[in-house]
Amino acid sequence: VEQRRLSLNQYTVRPWSLERAVAACVARDIPSIAVWRDKLAEVGTARGAQLLRANGLRASSVCRGGFFPDPSASERARRIDDTRRAIDEAAALGAPTLVLVCGPAAGQSLADARAQVAAGIAACADDAHRAGVRLGIEALHPMMIAERSVIATLGEANDLAALVGSPAVGVVVDVYHVFWDAHVEVEIARAGSTIVGFHLSDWRTPNGGDVTAKRAMIGDGCIDFVSLARAVTAATYAGDVEIEILNEDAWKDDLDVWLDTAVQRYREIVPG
Amino acid sequence: VEQRRLSLNQYTVRPWSLERAVAACVARDIPSIAVWRDKLAEVGTARGAQLLRANGLRASSVCRGGFFPDPSASERARRIDDTRRAIDEAAALGAPTLVLVCGPAAGQSLADARAQVAAGIAACADDAHRAGVRLGIEALHPMMIAERSVIATLGEANDLAALVGSPAVGVVVDVYHVFWDAHVEVEIARAGSTIVGFHLSDWRTPNGGDVTAKRAMIGDGCIDFVSLARAVTAATYAGDVEIEILNEDAWKDDLDVWLDTAVQRYREIVPG
Repeated sequence: VEQRRLSLNQYTVRPWSLERAVAACVARDIPSIAVWRDKLAEVGTARGAQLLRANGLRASSVCRGGFFPDPSASERARRIDDTRRAIDEAAALGAPTLVLVCGPAAGQSLADARAQVAAGIAACADDAHRAGVRLGIEALHPMMIAERSVIATLGEANDLAALVGSPAVGVVVDVYHVFWDAHVEVEIARAGSTIVGFHLSDWRTPNGGDVTAKRAMIGDGCIDFVSLARAVTAATYAGDVEIEILNEDAWKDDLDVWLDTAVQRYREIVPG
Repeated sequence: VEQRRLSLNQYTVRPWSLERAVAACVARDIPSIAVWRDKLAEVGTARGAQLLRANGLRASSVCRGGFFPDPSASERARRIDDTRRAIDEAAALGAPTLVLVCGPAAGQSLADARAQVAAGIAACADDAHRAGVRLGIEALHPMMIAERSVIATLGEANDLAALVGSPAVGVVVDVYHVFWDAHVEVEIARAGSTIVGFHLSDWRTPNGGDVTAKRAMIGDGCIDFVSLARAVTAATYAGDVEIEILNEDAWKDDLDVWLDTAVQRYREIVPG
């Protein structure tokens, strides 16, 4: 098994700076990295782009734009502007994808919030297209609906991408968020060439702490990686595969061991 | 607002015996109760039935049958037998519905487990029909997939009921489990007269402890009860409405206050 499509999503090793994460990729022959904007801001976009280039690393994606819903029109406009800045940052890094976390309802009905998500994405689609960046709508697990995303299934993400109808808008398949869905393989097939990201971690039921940071090491949970990876490959996705294992316990522990284990599990479990 | 359709799901006041829960219903003019089998076993089925009858209470449902998937055929047969016993208990109490919690994959693929759920329900459907009890397939929130149920959406529950194709098999709509779903109102309409239960509690994201027992008091979370209740009524459901607020913190506190609050919120929030 080779790892030419492997990417380290930077929040897998969240406490590390971009410099340190880049060095860790180089040391492990990981050819790609997904960059978070807070980490990029610490060094500046130009310096970040230079850092990746100097080390021969691709950027698989930038995380993240979105969080569109809000009762206030001016606040919604601010979120759209922020997503446009994120598009510029993705373009500067040469990242093909900006991951969108769509945002919670913010006190509104789910239906109203979903309409605001659609409007927000539509407002950014031309900017993304001009910048050569694709917006990846990421469905988040339904347990995150109140804080993170009113878009909770890959089916909804596909519907939303179809509604916006721009070549710059696609979907991200993160196994942690969608593995439970009886229709996930059908929706992966439906997504086809609109898939702009594939993210790996494993599911164990959160038992305390922050539900957004309780993802399990690949292989320590119950997700069927082989079936999902085959479905994504059959859908023609040939881009980078991110290991994105947000885990607040790991962040307090030895991250070199955590990352070594993740790479090993990727090589053992994920088909080439 | 009247409360002639209000039912107390017994696990809302889980530490209480059946006797005490029945007395609490009588004291509050709650005309119906959903009985859990462990609580019924403490007094015996005949005595439990007599207790309800003597106090003029209906049984809205018995909780629960199911947990069908297992790698072992003999264990699967045992689960089916246990569900048949639960059907008998529901019949003895005059409960129209036996709630099914379908069960987790138990180390198998989700697809295999779902097939075993379908086989398990099919094996019990005639027994239920003869007993005058309807089996209510309850979709559980996707965060419970690894421990409780491979059936995670109302759409899947509807598909499963259609697959089994028995007049004795329907679905239970529990707002906590399904409110997040963009298709929930469509699936409620599709369920129509196969809806055999409607359960209320509210959603706040679990932040520790047992995710099965972190339901919020009606009105303390983000669920749109009015829309969901209207959809269920439009689907022609006219049966009892259960308050089922499983909360491990409440179970350690004053349950009379908890129940008083639940009844008050029901009267304030849920349309008649």
